[in-house]
Amino acid sequence: MPNGTNPMDTADKEQLKLERLQSTLNRAYKNVPFHRKRFESHNLTPQAIGALEDIEKLPFMKRADLGLHYPYGLFAVPLRDIVRIHTAPGTGDRPSISGYTQADLLIWKKLVARSLNACGVTDMDILQIHLPAGLANWGRDYKDGGELLGASVIPNSMLSLSKTLMVLRDYKTTTLVTTLAFAEQLTDHMFERERHPNELNLKRIILVGEPVTKDIVKDLEARLHADIWQHYGLSEIPGPAIAHECGDHCGLHICDDHILPEIIDPATGQTLPAGTAGELVLTTLSARALPLVRFRTGDMARLITEPCGCGSPFIRMEWLTERADDYMIISGIKVSQEQTAVYLKQALGISDPDCDMERIRLNGTEALGISLVLDDALFSDEIKNLEQLMFTTERSLTENLGVPVTIRLMQKRN
Amino acid sequence: MPNGTNPMDTADKEQLKLERLQSTLNRAYKNVPFHRKRFESHNLTPQAIGALEDIEKLPFMKRADLGLHYPYGLFAVPLRDIVRIHTAPGTGDRPSISGYTQADLLIWKKLVARSLNACGVTDMDILQIHLPAGLANWGRDYKDGGELLGASVIPNSMLSLSKTLMVLRDYKTTTLVTTLAFAEQLTDHMFERERHPNELNLKRIILVGEPVTKDIVKDLEARLHADIWQHYGLSEIPGPAIAHECGDHCGLHICDDHILPEIIDPATGQTLPAGTAGELVLTTLSARALPLVRFRTGDMARLITEPCGCGSPFIRMEWLTERADDYMIISGIKVSQEQTAVYLKQALGISDPDCDMERIRLNGTEALGISLVLDDALFSDEIKNLEQLMFTTERSLTENLGVPVTIRLMQKRN
Repeated sequence: MPNGTNPMDTADKEQLKLERLQSTLNRAYKNVPFHRKRFESHNLTPQAIGALEDIEKLPFMKRADLGLHYPYGLFAVPLRDIVRIHTAPGTGDRPSISGYTQADLLIWKKLVARSLNACGVTDMDILQIHLPAGLANWGRDYKDGGELLGASVIPNSMLSLSKTLMVLRDYKTTTLVTTLAFAEQLTDHMFERERHPNELNLKRIILVGEPVTKDIVKDLEARLHADIWQHYGLSEIPGPAIAHECGDHCGLHICDDHILPEIIDPATGQTLPAGTAGELVLTTLSARALPLVRFRTGDMARLITEPCGCGSPFIRMEWLTERADDYMIISGIKVSQEQTAVYLKQALGISDPDCDMERIRLNGTEALGISLVLDDALFSDEIKNLEQLMFTTERSLTENLGVPVTIRLMQKRN
Repeated sequence: MPNGTNPMDTADKEQLKLERLQSTLNRAYKNVPFHRKRFESHNLTPQAIGALEDIEKLPFMKRADLGLHYPYGLFAVPLRDIVRIHTAPGTGDRPSISGYTQADLLIWKKLVARSLNACGVTDMDILQIHLPAGLANWGRDYKDGGELLGASVIPNSMLSLSKTLMVLRDYKTTTLVTTLAFAEQLTDHMFERERHPNELNLKRIILVGEPVTKDIVKDLEARLHADIWQHYGLSEIPGPAIAHECGDHCGLHICDDHILPEIIDPATGQTLPAGTAGELVLTTLSARALPLVRFRTGDMARLITEPCGCGSPFIRMEWLTERADDYMIISGIKVSQEQTAVYLKQALGISDPDCDMERIRLNGTEALGISLVLDDALFSDEIKNLEQLMFTTERSLTENLGVPVTIRLMQKRN
């Protein structure tokens, strides 16, 4: 029987999870008014949670809750115990903030190290991180996890494509952590220049930010002569490497000793039976600074309860390409269409802009393309001003969303 | 007598420095062919260094040596012991690389923590780091040092000016680590918008990257209602916080238990007596991965051997605004004029471009302004192509130098 999956271990693990959940809920209830009010509004106290399943009694947290309690309203420890503050674009005007204590950082470092190790990374590896600015927080976490394993880490830096390729080749990188968008861009760049992947020492690419289909994985592996591994993470909260593929590549193992997963029906909020596809909901089991209770990720997944051939004790999920919310994923960064419409309205100064949004390629990189219908409100300005307005709007949205934005004007719809 | 400066302590410290120097030289000689050859070419072995002063027998290292041994030729440990690899723009076509072992990282973390602590930073502080992309390595080091102190660290991220100000205010930042260029830009931005520094919780600003005169310090302190502290560092090698101001603000204390300073005549290479201004030369005393022996910094300084009123045992230097080399400092980043001319030649494809270089302000940020004389070689193209050529040249230089570059064409010189 594979290591770590015998019944006693499983019972121990379930007991550990329950104890951690109860401790998390106690701390959240005691230290965070937001959580206490939610318990009270359901006539509950943490004592009502006597089993893992009892978590279903509690209400969900949404992305918007993070912005509403900006900046520090959801922290469950005094600010002096916080040693790192990460900022991510929020769902409103205000960014969402996550905080870490020293103990939190150590746990996340270990989880990232575990996830890297599951892909075969050791102290013999040279690990290069290439993530867009919007995922800089993950870059720091991968650096910390890689260092803990003793790998030689080349931290994230905003190098151009050709410089990144130079570093990949000259530094003899064995493991690249990046997004699908960048991996594809890199591949195209190499083939256009007739460079061969054999010039590289690359053994594996770890893709983060969005689920990648088997066909795309196969194609990339064939073109780059490297194995592809997927990691799942959240940019708003604790970090990357919440789930990772093992050598069997049959779903992603969730680090469920520290993060409790549930699958719900996104329409009704009902918990779904194991094996059914639905929205992934996560509860932190050890985070001290920023506990999350039933956080709706918007990501769609299916839990796989059968033991994995690799012997890992961690439950698996199949990460699905659909979404339970209106977010688009651009270069691995989540962009809310609803929020984008709000920013667009503000930047243009008109009440109800009519537009379509899609993910496009702009000079090789992924971008948000907005097709804006030219209506009378926009025509009240002269064309010269309109051009200027489009320029400042693109800049403002690019900054607020953390991804490149380009606006195309189109005639009225038929 | 202030703590740590009695004769016995001093003798102990000198003995410690000598032992560390000898150990460094032994490792460099044994593990790095570059260093061994230099010893041999002077008919020396590490045994010839029996006192700290004997270091004068050894040749200097220059910035160019880093590029010549790209990528890993100067590492004194096997790659598997390296856990972090930092890249900085080099002096040639190739970047300069620094490496760290786990032990190196711990020492640097402690040195940064020591330097922050000397400015009064504690676990009660909220420390925000705002550095340009070219100083991203320092950003990581300040984050690590701040976390070690238990401060709440807001890591470096590429936010716009207005977002950075929002974070400063809303997150209640008490300590800002940044460059002079950014501190000035921030101040202008606030005053243009009639925001008052009393809206902020800012207690201190730590300036890095270039020496700042007393007049500028006074002016900034008055406008921002915060104390200014200066730190000295090198971007190519181990890191920031090699030297720091104490509460007396009379020079910067060099962490000379880990870095040995000398002052030389930049023209002759002769060691100068204490108190004389000259070029600062540094030797690492504990770095395992990348030992530097008599590294010429190009920075001008004067050592102050009198004990400091603060009681610190670390020797002080006055950091002077002149330079011993042709580098310009743009937003805290060193830019070689000679190297810039080489890049310019390559990008323009002409043999000997005639130009002037100066530090300018471009949309509020510091940039390298190049005034290029329009000569016949450039006129062989049509004007339309010339514009395109200027655009691609600006982009290429901006990328290679790590600072914004703008080119202005001018008529032939009289």
